[in-house]
Amino acid sequence: MSEDSGSLPSKNNFSEWYNEILWRAEIMDVRYPVKGLYVWFPHGFAIRKATYGILRELLDRDHEETLFPLLIPEYEFMKEAEHIKGFEEEVYWVTNGGLSKLDVPLALRPTSETAIYPMYALWVRSHADLPIKLYQIVNTFRYETKHTRPLIRLREITSFKEAHTVHATWEEAKEQVEDAIALYKEFYERLCVPVIMSKRPDWDKFPGADYTIAADAVMPDGRTLQVGTAHHLGDNFAKTFEICYEDENGEQQYAFQTCYGISERCIAALISIHGDDKGLVLPPEIAPVQVVIVPIIMKKMAEEVTQAAKDIEAEMKAAGLRVKIDDRPLRPGAKYYHWEMRGTPLRLEIGPRDLENGVVMAADRFGEKTSIPRENLKEGVRAFMDQFKEQLKSRAVERIRSQIKIVEEPDEIKEAVESGIAIVQWCGCEECAKEIEKRYDVSVLGDEIRSEFIRKSEGKCIICGKPSKQAVVGRSY
Amino acid sequence: MSEDSGSLPSKNNFSEWYNEILWRAEIMDVRYPVKGLYVWFPHGFAIRKATYGILRELLDRDHEETLFPLLIPEYEFMKEAEHIKGFEEEVYWVTNGGLSKLDVPLALRPTSETAIYPMYALWVRSHADLPIKLYQIVNTFRYETKHTRPLIRLREITSFKEAHTVHATWEEAKEQVEDAIALYKEFYERLCVPVIMSKRPDWDKFPGADYTIAADAVMPDGRTLQVGTAHHLGDNFAKTFEICYEDENGEQQYAFQTCYGISERCIAALISIHGDDKGLVLPPEIAPVQVVIVPIIMKKMAEEVTQAAKDIEAEMKAAGLRVKIDDRPLRPGAKYYHWEMRGTPLRLEIGPRDLENGVVMAADRFGEKTSIPRENLKEGVRAFMDQFKEQLKSRAVERIRSQIKIVEEPDEIKEAVESGIAIVQWCGCEECAKEIEKRYDVSVLGDEIRSEFIRKSEGKCIICGKPSKQAVVGRSY
Repeated sequence: MSEDSGSLPSKNNFSEWYNEILWRAEIMDVRYPVKGLYVWFPHGFAIRKATYGILRELLDRDHEETLFPLLIPEYEFMKEAEHIKGFEEEVYWVTNGGLSKLDVPLALRPTSETAIYPMYALWVRSHADLPIKLYQIVNTFRYETKHTRPLIRLREITSFKEAHTVHATWEEAKEQVEDAIALYKEFYERLCVPVIMSKRPDWDKFPGADYTIAADAVMPDGRTLQVGTAHHLGDNFAKTFEICYEDENGEQQYAFQTCYGISERCIAALISIHGDDKGLVLPPEIAPVQVVIVPIIMKKMAEEVTQAAKDIEAEMKAAGLRVKIDDRPLRPGAKYYHWEMRGTPLRLEIGPRDLENGVVMAADRFGEKTSIPRENLKEGVRAFMDQFKEQLKSRAVERIRSQIKIVEEPDEIKEAVESGIAIVQWCGCEECAKEIEKRYDVSVLGDEIRSEFIRKSEGKCIICGKPSKQAVVGRSY
Repeated sequence: MSEDSGSLPSKNNFSEWYNEILWRAEIMDVRYPVKGLYVWFPHGFAIRKATYGILRELLDRDHEETLFPLLIPEYEFMKEAEHIKGFEEEVYWVTNGGLSKLDVPLALRPTSETAIYPMYALWVRSHADLPIKLYQIVNTFRYETKHTRPLIRLREITSFKEAHTVHATWEEAKEQVEDAIALYKEFYERLCVPVIMSKRPDWDKFPGADYTIAADAVMPDGRTLQVGTAHHLGDNFAKTFEICYEDENGEQQYAFQTCYGISERCIAALISIHGDDKGLVLPPEIAPVQVVIVPIIMKKMAEEVTQAAKDIEAEMKAAGLRVKIDDRPLRPGAKYYHWEMRGTPLRLEIGPRDLENGVVMAADRFGEKTSIPRENLKEGVRAFMDQFKEQLKSRAVERIRSQIKIVEEPDEIKEAVESGIAIVQWCGCEECAKEIEKRYDVSVLGDEIRSEFIRKSEGKCIICGKPSKQAVVGRSY
């Protein structure tokens, strides 16, 4: 649906590159006539499907999938004061049905606490009903007044995975938050996307939560992208929605809850971190086409080459690979361009000479070529996929390491956030954070950092000199 | 989440049975605080997932999956006059974002023509772009003023599969409608749900279509349920939305379109047609648990029995079956009740005596018991699943055959529609149809019937005596 011509802007101009690759690699069409709403092209949708397939696989180990309504009656939405405050400026309201006005306005869920918890109040009766661990993958809505951006800042978040759990104690809910973080770590490892987890400052936590742990990716322009959050809700919502259970002594207790979400921002990170000036680069597990076969048809042995391509296709399919023959009447260069743009990990070329020599030419997404003996092809391709994934992972890790700077003086923050994030010593108080934020036009993203990329360091708060912990400072999307 | 006690109302009281089974088999919770919106329980969601998995598999052969926004600006929605007329009384409108009024009200899609076709107008340029065959599975909304009913008449249709195709000619679009009908036939065969296809009368076609073919299931109470529709849109929407292509002579032509949809009514039919007084009966392909293993633990050989159950579980899993051991501390009868209610096709019981005899007791969902030699278990279970599916299919076909009556006199309609549908001779004119409808409180569902269950018959219109065709008459949901 897009045209195979012209070249991509350099990834050094990240914002331009990002907008252009969405179109050229057929991820999304941004021309839908409402601000902040976009259309998934089939290729983008296939990437989404593979990505959320991984997320489902991980969650299905010990969660169950479910589905709650989109529309939330105003009186339910308005119950939890902190929660309302957090969302009142960005909720869409349905006020009319057909030609008449509704008795009760209905909110389009910006997130589903207030849709799910009235039901949890009905479902939870006894300690034996706990824990409950459900999730759903749904569209949610935010009336964004800021600049919108496909996959990143949306008015319809088309692919919000939200999990909601209920537990008997605060400690069990805390453990669940840890489980959620471990799950997100595993998820982003599967995407070869390194993330940094930290505890959000109190003023930046989820409205109604006790605390929030977030995962941030670092984008090519150095800005951070929040790509996952896990919230300990304490018994705040339980008290509002009357979610109580009878404990083993027959006493009524309020339940404790968590919720944790990932949106299509995971795909924004995936695209941005791996892509290059030639287009998408996709981990094999995500690539809609993992292997493209380009038969090099000459006058000589045309039939044999066509047949060889079909045989290879059948062999790859039998090995469980997503494979496609590109036999369009185009010159090979145009085909290479097409599949490189779309992030296909491996291209196999087969021509008359290869046939004679009993080999297949293999070119990876970065242009590295090797010749694989025909009889070892299946094993060769399998091994390639594993290596390619490792290669993406180490590229991305190397990159994020270069984007992290441990700074000792406040003024070093300025340079650090130009290409990534600064790790600073911070005492934890709001005043010092606001001072950092104001002085360098940045955000204090969080402390209690969990990251294998960040060396532990000690010191005193760079503003007030009091005892301190490491904190992540950056410019965020 | 529901309780394992009490018995289901008899299926002869279909309406009561239907409401009760949704709860007891953990399909949906109807207590969500907005009329016409319901919550999918995990078990119901697993059924939905398997069902739509089949639909995806069939569509993915030659369609691509995609995703368009939910919100449609009023000016796009209001473009096609027939279409507006068909939907204006049942569209939900979003009028407010945050604390302010929107400049342009946004409709919640009741169906996506007016969201998709402005994009098609951008995508279609030349005859080489055609055909386009896309689908999406989304939530859609209708402000129903009639009595709502879970899975059948909803305000949020949570699972609407809609396909939208574009073609160069009217004939190609007609062929696509035929392909859609063939696909739906295959889909319902996989669900073991017999359906009758017919062409809807002109006044009952999709708003904006040239014609509509619909699939109807016949429910246990004899009422028909429309479970799929395919529409030939002609170039009506193409003219409204300016979907044009350049033909091979360089001339601009309007494109021709089709669309076809299936909602979660497919699951309503599945549940209702196969279920019985003990609960759900599910085709193996749909059942979230296909085999439940109940170890009969006595003092004697308790450890060996537990181990044998685990071995069987591993063997079934390796054979690709969805299997579960029920080792809850309940009496066997309670377990049988539990799994029968949820529609599990096969129960395997293993106790000390079976172990000694080298057999496993197998009980199908209808209570038929056989003993299978342990060493043939895998083959035995595989063969069972195939037979069970055939059994469901033939039960359902036998049932629908008994629900169809070819009537020759108008007054025979009355009796026929008490338990099913009447096949009548009808000239095709609106006047005669309205006369039939008024006289017997029925609907003329359509003519040009496609059904292997209905014997061809000839005659004259039962009202006016003019030349006629067979038509389906029934009371519809």
